[in-house]
Amino acid sequence: MRKIEHLGIAVRDLEKANDLFKKLLGTSSYKEELVEGEGVKTSFFMIGETKIELLEATSEGSPIAKFISKRSEGIHHIAFDVEDINAEIDRLKSEGFEILNEVPKVGADNKLIVFLHPRSTNGVLVELCQERG
Amino acid sequence: MRKIEHLGIAVRDLEKANDLFKKLLGTSSYKEELVEGEGVKTSFFMIGETKIELLEATSEGSPIAKFISKRSEGIHHIAFDVEDINAEIDRLKSEGFEILNEVPKVGADNKLIVFLHPRSTNGVLVELCQERG
Repeated sequence: MRKIEHLGIAVRDLEKANDLFKKLLGTSSYKEELVEGEGVKTSFFMIGETKIELLEATSEGSPIAKFISKRSEGIHHIAFDVEDINAEIDRLKSEGFEILNEVPKVGADNKLIVFLHPRSTNGVLVELCQERG
Repeated sequence: MRKIEHLGIAVRDLEKANDLFKKLLGTSSYKEELVEGEGVKTSFFMIGETKIELLEATSEGSPIAKFISKRSEGIHHIAFDVEDINAEIDRLKSEGFEILNEVPKVGADNKLIVFLHPRSTNGVLVELCQERG
């Protein structure tokens, strides 16, 4: 775990949230990206070494739609930058953490990603991400 | 807003959470601090340029106790490092954000802090913090 790579924030309306976070952070979103496999439209801001990733659901079955319907808008997950995602998966499994997808999948922003189940991490949805070569 | 200064995570049992986050992050808590005014015991981890602050309530009236009883454990707030907290308060008010305490108060870790109301920030409890001189 080298740094917090990004924080994911679930929003209902990406365009409105882009405007709000631009005012809050004093900087504009530098890119948007559709991640069809996850059912989300994303928008990225940079603040120090960490990104803020706004997430809008593109379908009712999207995990973000489910999160908002259950808990409303807000912080959805925290993602840590790792050098070797498979080595981290092995290390965390041996420490008793529950990995949601043991085979890393391709996420937004050219990353390989896995999630840990919040029930093994004090209610925090944790993502690991490794830059794809 | 220069960087994410810390992420606050509400936990039921600080000792157990310290152990869990040590395993997760691969690094130990470097300090604990009681903040009586806020009704919390805190524990800090460093990851890159950002801290993770675990928060355990010390009384039933603590905002952390209320958060856990309503939403369970998990990410509680995101705190941004600012150079001049009063200038940021003025800027954000003029942008329409709702400040919870307009006079900064003394928080953990030798900081002056204010919170923005989540209803003005897409459901995210935002803290601003400035290092005390």
